[in-house]
Amino acid sequence: MAQTPIIVLKIGGSTAGNPAALASIAQDMASLSSQYSFVLAHGGSSQTNELCKRLGIAPKFYTSPAGIKSRATDAQIISLYAMACGGQANSQIVCALQAAGVNAIGLTGLDGRAVTARQKIITSVDESGKQKIIRDDYTGKIEKVNAELLQTLLSAGYTPVLAALAIGESNQPLNIDGDRLMAALASALHADMAISLTDVDGYYRNFPNDLVPSLTASELEAAMKNAGAGAASGGMKKKLMGCIEAINGGVREVIIGNGTVASPISSLLAGAGTHITKN
Amino acid sequence: MAQTPIIVLKIGGSTAGNPAALASIAQDMASLSSQYSFVLAHGGSSQTNELCKRLGIAPKFYTSPAGIKSRATDAQIISLYAMACGGQANSQIVCALQAAGVNAIGLTGLDGRAVTARQKIITSVDESGKQKIIRDDYTGKIEKVNAELLQTLLSAGYTPVLAALAIGESNQPLNIDGDRLMAALASALHADMAISLTDVDGYYRNFPNDLVPSLTASELEAAMKNAGAGAASGGMKKKLMGCIEAINGGVREVIIGNGTVASPISSLLAGAGTHITKN
Repeated sequence: MAQTPIIVLKIGGSTAGNPAALASIAQDMASLSSQYSFVLAHGGSSQTNELCKRLGIAPKFYTSPAGIKSRATDAQIISLYAMACGGQANSQIVCALQAAGVNAIGLTGLDGRAVTARQKIITSVDESGKQKIIRDDYTGKIEKVNAELLQTLLSAGYTPVLAALAIGESNQPLNIDGDRLMAALASALHADMAISLTDVDGYYRNFPNDLVPSLTASELEAAMKNAGAGAASGGMKKKLMGCIEAINGGVREVIIGNGTVASPISSLLAGAGTHITKN
Repeated sequence: MAQTPIIVLKIGGSTAGNPAALASIAQDMASLSSQYSFVLAHGGSSQTNELCKRLGIAPKFYTSPAGIKSRATDAQIISLYAMACGGQANSQIVCALQAAGVNAIGLTGLDGRAVTARQKIITSVDESGKQKIIRDDYTGKIEKVNAELLQTLLSAGYTPVLAALAIGESNQPLNIDGDRLMAALASALHADMAISLTDVDGYYRNFPNDLVPSLTASELEAAMKNAGAGAASGGMKKKLMGCIEAINGGVREVIIGNGTVASPISSLLAGAGTHITKN
């Protein structure tokens, strides 16, 4: 049987903790399963925040010179992140997909070296603009996806569900960005499409006005450099960067749209959301 | 290439949290990798206990009419267990194996329905001997192992690492016993051998005296019924029951032995520990 086109989906950790949204995504994936093969990437920030809160640990964040906010991930936090993202969020998603009849298999990037990364040396900027170099942060830049493993699972009829956790150069777990994971997976698998499911209807020139139905990656890059894109939140900026990476990695089309509505994937495939293409 | 004989290993969650023991097991698996294919089963009770302690949640246990103590697993605990066993212990083991050059892939029984179970209705006996029926406990009795998935991974060169978490009849996560998981995996995979690694040298008639180097499953069953076996702790009783189940499931030989020594698997294959056979 020729393999159906691959769609790489990305959902946030908060969606994993939202049973109604998750059930709706799962049902939609099941209804589309004869037309597409899915690979799902997810984060686990909200689960990690919740666990830290219960343990009385205040989460720390770094801000890069470009203004991107990232979770600080020391040795204690990476261990909690492995539990919350790799254990809790991943199993919540797998159970919801299994309940909808999708034979999901949950993995982190550690498993079979599914996603390898290099530990980042982080430059952090404080509120006064002072820069500091951080070397003991377990955050990684994705280097390689084990496409062969994922293809083996897809060919055997499984739907891989990848938690945003990679294996580093010393076999250490590393926190990676879920949107960039989506881009790396879509590129490595030569996916037909990547879809980033979020809690808004797409990319807005001036949120909550001017939803952009379609644009090219270069138009998006240009927009991100000017004031209009400055209005996008840190989370939306990361999503947009993931979309651009996917397009640059050879993916034909990336869609950003609302994952909290009925039949979210079908709606986006039918034209809803923001559609990003190469040209 | 003809597949090498399969050995199913079982380690406790406490070994997963012991980096030196884990590294030694991982190195031994790497050194034996040309002779055997390994599948590893593990628990996560110590990680779950630790997490509960940090969260200020007192663990509850039930005692069965047969005197077997089991963790009480309500909705809150199963969620913590999924994190601690499926997230933390599993990723610790996978990283240690990867560091030794073993291409481990961590799974729970939820993943690809690797292990399905039926939720137990528990009869608990209190200290005064009074029985109580418990229906909201997320503990399962193993029903089926997806041997095809594990064979697919073994054939592709991966070493599956299974956390003791199964998927139930309503797609809910269920806590399962690690020793019984070892038995179910070994039976389903027609494994050549199962090895239960613990922190003592094997099964003793009268701990710490009279280590038994070898016995048959029926001798072991008989011994467990008389006073001598009554001296075995709850943990050892569960291990022995897992060994008997593996033998009854068609496994040629099961070994119980010390996982905290150098080259633990090679030592047991060379004769150390307690060797249990059918006849």
